[in-house]
Formats: sequence, structure tokens, C-alpha cells
Amino acid sequence: MTRKLAAEAFGTFWLVFGGCGSAVLAAAFPELGIGFVGVSLAFGLTVLTMAYAVGGISGGHFNPAVSVGLAMAGRFEWKELAPYVIAQLIGAMIAGWALYIIASGQAGWTPGGFASNGYDSLSPGKYSLMSALLIEVILTAGFLIVILGSTSRAVPGGFAPISIGLALTLIHLISIPVTNTSVNPARSTGVAFFAETGAASQLWLFWVAPIVGAIIGAVIWRYILSPGETLEDIGGE
Amino acid sequence: MTRKLAAEAFGTFWLVFGGCGSAVLAAAFPELGIGFVGVSLAFGLTVLTMAYAVGGISGGHFNPAVSVGLAMAGRFEWKELAPYVIAQLIGAMIAGWALYIIASGQAGWTPGGFASNGYDSLSPGKYSLMSALLIEVILTAGFLIVILGSTSRAVPGGFAPISIGLALTLIHLISIPVTNTSVNPARSTGVAFFAETGAASQLWLFWVAPIVGAIIGAVIWRYILSPGETLEDIGGE
Amino acid sequence: MTRKLAAEAFGTFWLVFGGCGSAVLAAAFPELGIGFVGVSLAFGLTVLTMAYAVGGISGGHFNPAVSVGLAMAGRFEWKELAPYVIAQLIGAMIAGWALYIIASGQAGWTPGGFASNGYDSLSPGKYSLMSALLIEVILTAGFLIVILGSTSRAVPGGFAPISIGLALTLIHLISIPVTNTSVNPARSTGVAFFAETGAASQLWLFWVAPIVGAIIGAVIWRYILSPGETLEDIGGE
Amino acid sequence: MTRKLAAEAFGTFWLVFGGCGSAVLAAAFPELGIGFVGVSLAFGLTVLTMAYAVGGISGGHFNPAVSVGLAMAGRFEWKELAPYVIAQLIGAMIAGWALYIIASGQAGWTPGGFASNGYDSLSPGKYSLMSALLIEVILTAGFLIVILGSTSRAVPGGFAPISIGLALTLIHLISIPVTNTSVNPARSTGVAFFAETGAASQLWLFWVAPIVGAIIGAVIWRYILSPGETLEDIGGE
Repeated sequence: MTRKLAAEAFGTFWLVFGGCGSAVLAAAFPELGIGFVGVSLAFGLTVLTMAYAVGGISGGHFNPAVSVGLAMAGRFEWKELAPYVIAQLIGAMIAGWALYIIASGQAGWTPGGFASNGYDSLSPGKYSLMSALLIEVILTAGFLIVILGSTSRAVPGGFAPISIGLALTLIHLISIPVTNTSVNPARSTGVAFFAETGAASQLWLFWVAPIVGAIIGAVIWRYILSPGETLEDIGGE
Repeated sequence: MTRKLAAEAFGTFWLVFGGCGSAVLAAAFPELGIGFVGVSLAFGLTVLTMAYAVGGISGGHFNPAVSVGLAMAGRFEWKELAPYVIAQLIGAMIAGWALYIIASGQAGWTPGGFASNGYDSLSPGKYSLMSALLIEVILTAGFLIVILGSTSRAVPGGFAPISIGLALTLIHLISIPVTNTSVNPARSTGVAFFAETGAASQLWLFWVAPIVGAIIGAVIWRYILSPGETLEDIGGE
Repeated sequence: MTRKLAAEAFGTFWLVFGGCGSAVLAAAFPELGIGFVGVSLAFGLTVLTMAYAVGGISGGHFNPAVSVGLAMAGRFEWKELAPYVIAQLIGAMIAGWALYIIASGQAGWTPGGFASNGYDSLSPGKYSLMSALLIEVILTAGFLIVILGSTSRAVPGGFAPISIGLALTLIHLISIPVTNTSVNPARSTGVAFFAETGAASQLWLFWVAPIVGAIIGAVIWRYILSPGETLEDIGGE
Repeated sequence: MTRKLAAEAFGTFWLVFGGCGSAVLAAAFPELGIGFVGVSLAFGLTVLTMAYAVGGISGGHFNPAVSVGLAMAGRFEWKELAPYVIAQLIGAMIAGWALYIIASGQAGWTPGGFASNGYDSLSPGKYSLMSALLIEVILTAGFLIVILGSTSRAVPGGFAPISIGLALTLIHLISIPVTNTSVNPARSTGVAFFAETGAASQLWLFWVAPIVGAIIGAVIWRYILSPGETLEDIGGE
């Protein structure tokens, strides 16, 4: 169990440090910056790489909504949920803190939004609460279906980290303008308290929407797409 | 059969919501927008991810032209064609509608072209009907050859979603300036009626050209590239 | 043999139509254009996708320099070289012609360089003949080592198209500014005669340098990196 | 042993020539340049492609810090460390020299920073020594965990080059603005002496930080994440 929790903490650290780090440090660099394409790639590659590295140890969730969805789908023990979520939050918050220290090493730097998630005035494109809620629910539901399908027995083993990691890239390519993309409450929590913009006051949405979306995705998979599936370990991912 | 149709509907939803969503929401975001590279990646990743997720259930067509081409190549039952196409259209139209709701949550937003396909004055680069027709036919033919070849027995199982998904990325990298890239009548239909530009009046081309292209690709595969091939299930994809 | 040559012709068509097509149609589109990153991706994905699709039929060379290098390394019959190269050239020239027709469908369009390769005044960054020669030799040598290594028995089957396709992406990321990137005489020939810039007069370099580079790469592989290797079929690629 | 050292020398040549070459030649090309996203992709693809090509010969380190970390984790013989590092340095320096020759073929070119690594006034974004140290240590530690995890027996063979190569892409997406990204002392050394900016005086950091990071990563893997693991060959990578 210790190994599993260490794997979840380290993997979630990598996700937040890498994904939010690319956004804070590199997205808007003059002329050569990576933009939303680069940030989308970075988030996806954190999951692709860590799922290959430690997915065999913990299952490679790195995301409380994923843990809830997998439990809902019968692929993960409910009793392990709380320790997993705590490990994920610890990893995410250490990542936010390390990133803050590093970014502060640039003269005149201020945190601004610090890659936090938001809606209305805190949405990159000023989208409403309703738009934010809807897109986070839809994309997390789709994310869970990709996760559940790619790790099912119908798919040759070993490809799941590619499919799941690149699904996260896809999700960011769509939704950064709307919410700065969460689909992951730990990622949102890890940076919210460092932002100067009041992002922490909107954090509730990025717990509610991803978890609701994950449950919807898990239900669609379990009762519609793969009704005969029985409890099984998620194996390689 | 219900599972298959649900898989096609959901996969096509994901394709249109993700691909057109990235175009509508993120392509032209000031400074940091994802541009045509990001949209190309997004379309490809919708297919890569859903082919791993539900390809084992329905074959992962998500595209009426692909269904026609596969039937033509002897890999799909003609009698399943109509239900598949209807499921794809339902998924595509729900995606267009959901995307419309979300995009409307930005103050002052108007749909404009809404990621629809077009030629002449509705082509992003103002290309003629002839150019549009030709490029859609060629690219859909190539797409079918990639699909048929990558799912044939000569190729180790499991790689097909990578090859097929990234083929769609490639196709977009080439042809967004010409037609905004269709090669998929369901994708075109899902957004055409939301556009303010009269895209629906040009929709016929994005049924005719992809289907003609798919038939040509299937014929090239079946009679020239792989003449000895007998009816077989497409398996993993 | 007919199937093999058809596969080489179609694959080389796809490479030139896709790679040069992305450059001619989409690279410099205002604001949203794909730039050199997109063109690099497109070239690589043409090879990745067609190697999965028809690599099992012909070996998936799509490039006279690759055919020469593979023959040099003992992986391809010298007697098949001439028909392969002819098939590749036919595919490349049909692609150049089709691309010309499509691009002409934009009012006021002129071919300009038409994605041709060049040095000195025809180099995108005005690099000298010496720089052009050196980089084409080095990159083709490296390309052959990637091809020979990725298709050797030491590597699990099925990954070669990913490695080889993305090697071509890498090669373009480095060298588009120098020569517009050839490493493939068929690709250079397919577009040179459509350019308005006199690119055809420099075409000789893009036959000499890639073939010299391919031979060097094959020799490094056969006599230094893998000296004990005996004649074997390249199998899955 | 000769084959192994040749593989390390050639692979490290490819890494420095490709990664730094894309930065020097293509990153800042007017309008169409590849930016930090393209450079990040290029670095990752050098490792992905060469790990498939020659990883089966030498293990595919191409990086002194990786060699140290693998030795620390019990996956590589300490007595092979010195020859490996020397081979890597030779490859890296030949690459720097070849790149210099090629880049000089552009009229009026001056080397400037020549893709060297730096902190303070030599950091692209003027980050402090502390930020530089911290990010290089963290990212190299994470890199080693990805390497050790992706080549462990828990993961299906063959995917390691994808995971490891794309980890290097991710690392660049995050940290180019801070240090121009090293995580590899050979890469830093190969170009430092060609820079006009005094980068050689800061080279010490890009030996110390990656090696410290690699040791930390190896220790985390060996004693926390995978405590029961015994000495084993890294096999496919």
C-alpha cells in the first residue's frame, strides 16, 4: 500500500509540476512560447510517461475523479479511495509549491492566475459558469470512457498509457479557453491557493464537475457500452 | 447491436465535440491559440482515443464514409450500414448542439462558420469547388487505405488506432485551408446547421466526395494492394 | 511484384502529396498556419501511416535513398532496386501534379517554390551548398540507422513505423530552414519541375546527398553497429 | 563493448545534433519557426528514434546522468560508466562541431548562445541559479523514474522508447525558459564551447544538477517505488 500511495503522490506531482509548469513558465514566452498546444501536450505526456513508469504499481490514477470513476465502474476498491485521494493531493500541493519557488526566481515575476482553473472573470476566454460546468462534465465523462475502454480486456495490453495520456492532451486542446482545463480536482487544488486572482473561491466547481463527469462516464461504460463486464483488475495501466 | 450503435454514437460525438470544439473554442484564441496544428491533432486524437476505448465493440468507424468503404472492402456487413450511419449522425448532432451551448457562454459570441466545411467563399482559403472535391476524394481514399492496411492481418495487432488516428491528423494538416477538412459526412452534418454562413447549402459535397473517395480507396485496396484477402473481421480496430 | 510496386507508388504519392501538400497549402496560412512544426509532423505521419498500411506488402521504402541503403545493408535485393525507384518516382510525380491542380484552385495563386528543395538563394534560410550537402548526408545517414535498427530482430515487432515516421518528423524539424528538407530524391523530383524558382537546376544535389548519406548509414550499421547480422527480411516494416 | 560504445556515441551525436540543431537552425525562423514546441519535440524524438535503433545494443543512455542513475539503481555496471560517458561526450562534441559548420553556411550568422544551457543572464527567461538548480534536479529525477519504471518487467516490452523519448519532450516543454533545458551533461558540454556568451563558465551546474537529480530518482525508485526489485538487465531499452 505504501508503494501504491507513493506512486500516486509522485505521479500527481509530475502531472501538476509538468502540466502547470509548462503553462506558468513556457506558454507565453515571447515569440517562441509553447502556447496552448504545448501546454496540452505537456499535460498529456505527464500521464503517458508516469502511467508507463508507475502505472503497474498503483494503476496510475493521479486524479481523484479518475479514482472515483474507477471505483464506480467496479475496477477499484472503494476503501482505497480516501488514501489515494490524499496521496494525490499531497503530490499536487508539493508540485504547486515547488513550481512557485522556481517561478519566483525570475526578477519581477508575480503569480497572476498561476495556471489555476476558473469560470466567468477567471476563465481565460471569460466563459460562464454554465459553460464551464458543462464542458468539464462532458470531458471528464469521455476521459473515463477512454480509460475504462483502453484498459479493458478487448484491447491489446500496453497501449493504454498512450490512449489515456493523449486523451488528456485532446481534452486540453478543446477546453483551455473555457476553464483552463481541470478534469482533475487534485490538479486544480495544487495551484489554486498560489493564484492572486481568487481562484480558490471557484475551486468547488473543479471538484464537483469532474467527479460528476467521472461518475457519468463510468455508468455509461458499465451499463451501456460494456454491460457484461465483471470486476477485474485494470492490469497494465 | 445496441452496444455497437451506442459505441458509434458516442465515438462520433467525441470526434465532433473534440475536433470541432478545438476549432471553435481554441484555434484562434489571441496569442496562445492552437491554430491548425492544434485542431489537426485534436481530430486525430479523438479517433485514436475512442478507437482504443470502443473500437473493440463497434469497429470504431465514427464516419459514414468509413462504414461504406469497409463494406465495399468486404470487412463490414452492408445490412449494418444504415443503423451505423444513423447512430453516427445522432452522435454528431448532439455534439454540435452541446458545443453550441458551451460556446454561447462567452459574452458577444456569434457562431460564424462554426467549424463547418465549405468551398468557394466558404473555404478558409477560398478554394474552388473543384479543388475541394479533388482533395476530399484523394484524402478519403488514402484514409481508407490506411484503415484497411493497418487492420489487416499483416500488421501486429494494437497499432491500428495510432495509425488511423494520426492519419486523420495528417489529413487535417494538409486540407484545413481548402475545405476546413471533412472526409467525414457525419462531422460535416453535425455542425453545418449551426453555422451562420450558409454552410448547409454546401453540405452535399461533404457527403458525395468522402463517400466516393472511400469507395475508391476500398477498391484500390481490395483489387490492387491486397487482392487475395478474404472476408475477415477487422478485429482490434 | 505488381502489388509491391503499387504499394511503393501509392506510399510515395501519399508522402509527397501529404508532406509537400501541407507545406504548399497550410504552412503559411495567415495567423493559423501550421508552420514548420506542422509540415514536419505531416511528413512524418505520411510514413508512419503508410508503413502500417502497406509496409507489409513492399517493405515501405517510399524513397530511392532508403531502397539503396537497404540494398547496401543486405536487407533488399539489388535487382529490385530499379523497379522500386521507378514506382516511387511515378507516385511522387502524380502527387506533385495533383497538388498543383488543387493549389491552382485558389484565385491569384502562383506556385513559387512549390515546396521544392534548394541551397544558396533557393534555401529557405539562404544556406550554402556545403551546408546543404552536409546536413542532407548526415540526416539521411541517421535515418538509415534508425530504419535498420528499428526493423532489426532486437526490437519488438510493430514499433518500426512509429520510430521511422517520427525520425522523418525530427529530420524536418532540424533542416527545413537549410534545404527545405529532402533526404528523399523522389520527394524532391516530384515537385521540382512545378517550381517557378529554378529548383530543377539544383535537383542533382537531392539525389547525390541522400544516396551518399544512405550508403554511409548502411555501412555504419552493417560494419560497426551490427557486424554479425546476416541477410534477413525487414519483416513488419 | 566496441559496438556498445559506438551506439552510445552515435546516439548522443543524434541527440545533440537533432535537438540543438533544431534550436539553432529552426526555432526562431521568421514567421514559420518551430519555437519551443518544435525544439521540445525534436529532443524527444532523437531519443525515441535512437532508443529503437540502437537501444538493444547499448541500452540507449545517450546521457551521463542516465548512466549514473542506472548504475545507482543496479541496472548498469559501474565499471562501464567511464567508457560510456567518454563515448557520449565524443558523440556530443562531434555533433556540436558539425552543427557549427552547417550553421556557419548562412551569411552573417553568429553563434550567439548556440543552444547552450545557462542561468541568470544566460537563462532564456533570466531565472536565478537557484531556480535553474532546482528545476534541473527535479526534472532529471523524474526522468530517471520514467526510465526505470518504463523498462521494468511490469511494463509490456517495446513501449519504453516512446515513454522515455516523450518524457524528454515533456521536460523541454517545461524548462526551456529556465535553463534552455539540460538534464544531460553531454548535451550541455557538446555546445557550450561554441557559444559566444560565456556558457562554458556555467557548465558545472549542468553536470552537478542532472547527476544529483538522477541519483535522487534512482534512490526513489529503488528504495520506495520498487523496493523488491533485484538486479536485472534493462532489456528492450
